[in-house]
Amino acid sequence: MDVITDPDVDAVWICSPSQYHADQIKACAANGKHVFCEKPIATDLAETVEAINACNEAGVKLMIGLQRRFDPNFLRVRNAIETKEVGDTIVIKTCSRDPSPPPYEYVKGGGGIFNDMAVHDLDMTRFLAGEDPIEILAVGSCHIDKSIEDLPGSEAFDTATCIVKYPNGVSAMVDVCRQSSYGYDQRAEVLGTKGMIATDNVYPNTAKIYRNDFTGNADMPFDFFLSRYFEAYVTETEAFCKSLVEDSEVPCTGIDGLVALVMSLAADKSAAENRWVKFSEVIENVYCSSPTECSLLVDSDVFPDGFKPTKSLSELQNIVVPDVDEQKKSGSFTTKFKEMLGI
Amino acid sequence: MDVITDPDVDAVWICSPSQYHADQIKACAANGKHVFCEKPIATDLAETVEAINACNEAGVKLMIGLQRRFDPNFLRVRNAIETKEVGDTIVIKTCSRDPSPPPYEYVKGGGGIFNDMAVHDLDMTRFLAGEDPIEILAVGSCHIDKSIEDLPGSEAFDTATCIVKYPNGVSAMVDVCRQSSYGYDQRAEVLGTKGMIATDNVYPNTAKIYRNDFTGNADMPFDFFLSRYFEAYVTETEAFCKSLVEDSEVPCTGIDGLVALVMSLAADKSAAENRWVKFSEVIENVYCSSPTECSLLVDSDVFPDGFKPTKSLSELQNIVVPDVDEQKKSGSFTTKFKEMLGI
Amino acid sequence: MDVITDPDVDAVWICSPSQYHADQIKACAANGKHVFCEKPIATDLAETVEAINACNEAGVKLMIGLQRRFDPNFLRVRNAIETKEVGDTIVIKTCSRDPSPPPYEYVKGGGGIFNDMAVHDLDMTRFLAGEDPIEILAVGSCHIDKSIEDLPGSEAFDTATCIVKYPNGVSAMVDVCRQSSYGYDQRAEVLGTKGMIATDNVYPNTAKIYRNDFTGNADMPFDFFLSRYFEAYVTETEAFCKSLVEDSEVPCTGIDGLVALVMSLAADKSAAENRWVKFSEVIENVYCSSPTECSLLVDSDVFPDGFKPTKSLSELQNIVVPDVDEQKKSGSFTTKFKEMLGI
Amino acid sequence: MDVITDPDVDAVWICSPSQYHADQIKACAANGKHVFCEKPIATDLAETVEAINACNEAGVKLMIGLQRRFDPNFLRVRNAIETKEVGDTIVIKTCSRDPSPPPYEYVKGGGGIFNDMAVHDLDMTRFLAGEDPIEILAVGSCHIDKSIEDLPGSEAFDTATCIVKYPNGVSAMVDVCRQSSYGYDQRAEVLGTKGMIATDNVYPNTAKIYRNDFTGNADMPFDFFLSRYFEAYVTETEAFCKSLVEDSEVPCTGIDGLVALVMSLAADKSAAENRWVKFSEVIENVYCSSPTECSLLVDSDVFPDGFKPTKSLSELQNIVVPDVDEQKKSGSFTTKFKEMLGI
Repeated sequence: MDVITDPDVDAVWICSPSQYHADQIKACAANGKHVFCEKPIATDLAETVEAINACNEAGVKLMIGLQRRFDPNFLRVRNAIETKEVGDTIVIKTCSRDPSPPPYEYVKGGGGIFNDMAVHDLDMTRFLAGEDPIEILAVGSCHIDKSIEDLPGSEAFDTATCIVKYPNGVSAMVDVCRQSSYGYDQRAEVLGTKGMIATDNVYPNTAKIYRNDFTGNADMPFDFFLSRYFEAYVTETEAFCKSLVEDSEVPCTGIDGLVALVMSLAADKSAAENRWVKFSEVIENVYCSSPTECSLLVDSDVFPDGFKPTKSLSELQNIVVPDVDEQKKSGSFTTKFKEMLGI
Repeated sequence: MDVITDPDVDAVWICSPSQYHADQIKACAANGKHVFCEKPIATDLAETVEAINACNEAGVKLMIGLQRRFDPNFLRVRNAIETKEVGDTIVIKTCSRDPSPPPYEYVKGGGGIFNDMAVHDLDMTRFLAGEDPIEILAVGSCHIDKSIEDLPGSEAFDTATCIVKYPNGVSAMVDVCRQSSYGYDQRAEVLGTKGMIATDNVYPNTAKIYRNDFTGNADMPFDFFLSRYFEAYVTETEAFCKSLVEDSEVPCTGIDGLVALVMSLAADKSAAENRWVKFSEVIENVYCSSPTECSLLVDSDVFPDGFKPTKSLSELQNIVVPDVDEQKKSGSFTTKFKEMLGI
Repeated sequence: MDVITDPDVDAVWICSPSQYHADQIKACAANGKHVFCEKPIATDLAETVEAINACNEAGVKLMIGLQRRFDPNFLRVRNAIETKEVGDTIVIKTCSRDPSPPPYEYVKGGGGIFNDMAVHDLDMTRFLAGEDPIEILAVGSCHIDKSIEDLPGSEAFDTATCIVKYPNGVSAMVDVCRQSSYGYDQRAEVLGTKGMIATDNVYPNTAKIYRNDFTGNADMPFDFFLSRYFEAYVTETEAFCKSLVEDSEVPCTGIDGLVALVMSLAADKSAAENRWVKFSEVIENVYCSSPTECSLLVDSDVFPDGFKPTKSLSELQNIVVPDVDEQKKSGSFTTKFKEMLGI
Repeated sequence: MDVITDPDVDAVWICSPSQYHADQIKACAANGKHVFCEKPIATDLAETVEAINACNEAGVKLMIGLQRRFDPNFLRVRNAIETKEVGDTIVIKTCSRDPSPPPYEYVKGGGGIFNDMAVHDLDMTRFLAGEDPIEILAVGSCHIDKSIEDLPGSEAFDTATCIVKYPNGVSAMVDVCRQSSYGYDQRAEVLGTKGMIATDNVYPNTAKIYRNDFTGNADMPFDFFLSRYFEAYVTETEAFCKSLVEDSEVPCTGIDGLVALVMSLAADKSAAENRWVKFSEVIENVYCSSPTECSLLVDSDVFPDGFKPTKSLSELQNIVVPDVDEQKKSGSFTTKFKEMLGI
């Protein structure tokens, strides 16, 4: 907390355990500090909206650490899509495998495979699609450590597959697994109307070895995420600093963090109910009576008088205060919020 | 027909348009000829069962040409799974892309993308899983030739993605597209508890070229399926001949062709109804009053007295006569069929 | 011999041990049979010229089995050079490694590493260069089976490296080794003024495996030359048959076999004397008093009156009778030979 | 010079044009500064020895920037050799191609292709062999910019190939070219008694693109040496700093720089005289009357009384003062030098 209140500090990096993120973001906002926060903002939707709004109301920048967006390989795929190098996107495929499953204690209460792992891939499909998604179908299963099968919901899964529907008939296919005996494996493949772009897994060097029992890579893929994403972490840090110095938009916003959470919650629900889940189903549970007072209306039929919760990702702007960069262009949130509530 | 009735002919290869397959198979059976038939046996389930039964009753061998099973690359993946080279299977992924979409006239009335294209991939997932599948979720979309969007059902799709659930939590992910601007692209990837095995696309040679505008393969992938699967066609032909000469089991049976059809029909239904479809939903529509008199009971509540249609893939044996190789081991079909009908 | 004299036989394939090749070729020629002969024609230069001349005088076709020229990978490199796909050739590199060294008995008296192994690579550099070579520098060494170190000359080597100079400053680099613990490895790389083309080693399939101890090719490269060059053997056989049926030029002539032998003999000499050896040094030892009476003049200063032996590869035509295809265009050999001898 | 005399400065990085290196090193030594100097130390052998001796007498560390030794790919090959991962070394192959030739003005007076370009590869073969080389055979040619053909000696070459003999029959093959239309291309391949290790060229990312006209790498190789060797430059800088902080041996010594120069001079001579050149032929021209008074005795038969110039790489210690790290172990240079001269 000393850092957060120190007048010489301009910006704070929050890399604490997830459950402290929201409060620490709010504290930073209250002290006028810009914030870089590792994903997730919070594990609860309402709390996430509140933390974002705290920053936006305070006029401080908030950047979320979805570092995979800064990996040079994924970035190259994104660039190909933006420049239509392979035409219009048809299918997006990502796969993501961790070297080995976390301990039982981490999985228990960790929020499940969609929230603590697949969220990166779901976000990546949105990053690559360049559009907001519509609905999701998810499947989970347990193959490695059968002891977690007793855990509730998606905490019982170490493997998951998803299909996400995007506008214009674009489908994204995601598969994740908590164990890859050969080290980290994160790849993306995009088929477009004019071709395909695909990344390969990353190795420490280009050397290959040929011996009497095998021929292949001289070294194994990385087995630690800090090594695998070293370049991405450097790049995202530079990007945040650049945003501060130039007072330009952060490249990964609070809304990006919020939508990533919405996607993982919807995946969770889909796997539990074995059916397509629209993202609006998740969002319409969030009700904000003010920028910093939000709550969830899950399973509730009692809506406050004269209030309609948000129904789609594009309506998120109704419950989230414009951030510091948007504010420069548009009017104040309070006016807008009042308009929304009709008061 | 001269071939089929020629007393000097032992076996017949049927490579005619799909709509003639069933009748030609029956004619071969009636004349005691062994049959190799390109997939599909028929585009109708009941007709498919009848054609299979015709062969099985006549005691002639029937092999279905699902040639991809004989490609050395896919075969290598299957072998890895059988020998548990990558442990127990967790996820199976296949992708399949044709160089360019067929003409409008071919697509119209062709049965849709699942029946005329994805069927190979659906069969491949079953071949690799080594188990019968449980249910399927499919999505279709149109990206290339918008003129087909007016066609009914899955004929309007040029792209499809599926998830197939197999026993023990194994998922298979399939994506197909009628256009791949870079030539044929058929690959498989299997993640197991001890590793991954994956095939790459096939090129005419290993040469790579490095020039000022690109560095990559000297030649494009194949753009004609007979070139792409040349080796597979040779191998499957040899395999059928070997079965005849040694009087051993054919490696790709009528049941394999039947299940492939069931899978593509279920995919069709899933895409149309936007939900998981169990394969039993498709199968329970087939009602056989005798080995060679089968019909579909789709949308019918009127079941014949004392008869219960088949409910799962494993019960297919109730409506299909044991083939010539099974008959050597077990009793006759007639006895069995009577038992099933309780008469 | 029954085959060679059988009037129903048009052409003979000679695949016997090398020492019988020359006599069998002559017998074929005497009986008017076309000949396909595995390399080498003979291990002696004079005998090689005689065998070629026997065929050419008899007007039968002679094709030499330098099968590597028909491998689709090497062929692709040659095509790139012919069409200037990578511009004008600057450097040619080939490497060639056998799975394991032959037994001591094979090496002893086998003619040494340049004649029984590197000859394929030396021929390949000429095939790729599309020109006749000028001089060679070769180095040999022994690393695997030290027992052969006692053998004379290049029989003591299991490893060799060469540089061959071609016209226009083109250099070819060759390295060969009798042992490659990872199976056959034969590759070529050509740098041109506009880029590079390079082949990779060949594997039975495209599958790759990723496990906790390695990630790489699912299967090893081929360990038997008949598997490695299966396609090449089929192609060269088809090519010979096509030459016979169409009465067209054979794609790998007696001269090609003769020059390959000249190259390996020069390499041998270079390694022994540790200096550049011009190919003319080897050729000028061959003296033919008639098409079928040739001898070697090594270390001899006594030249027959009025006769000058051949000095360069381009003058080989002075001692070799025009073959059956050339004869169609030009005059008879006898006239020509007399002209050369000035009688 | 202000930096060199600044009492607050401990170490100096010399990255100036090559002709200033030697004097600047001496100035650093005179001021007690440790030195990191980009290769070469000097383009003249005698001057190189003097500069090294200046540092060694002054007791300051001298590290030479042969940055390729710190590239993770080449380093991996070296490690494989040190740990005998592919057994005992049989053949070493390196290739090195620059994106485009330097301007005529750079080439003229630049010392030729062996000194300004191949020196990196020659050093790399020594780095990989882990031994001092014996003799070299080099060939040069001109293919790209014919205007340089008028320049003297190896300045007229834009392409060169070399074979370097190392102890135990190990051969190294090097090919370099001043133009690679596809960007930087630097690779190494080592065949050992138990297998092969080989590096591939380096790309900015792992993405591959598949379109109707090509399938290959999404981006070109690097076209600027600072990008290609970015990681190597960082690593070598860290290594020098570590040596200073820990007072440990520098990983790339003055002797390494000196031998690299000897190798390139010998290559130059070999290409000019079209024959094998022993490295001792170059070294025996260096005569030092004191550590800082050396001269070349090329083409001179007049040796000073009682003095025999150095004959082999292993005798370099006779003309080079032990460096600061060696001195800790052994006696002083002056004693040693006097012993050598017999005074």
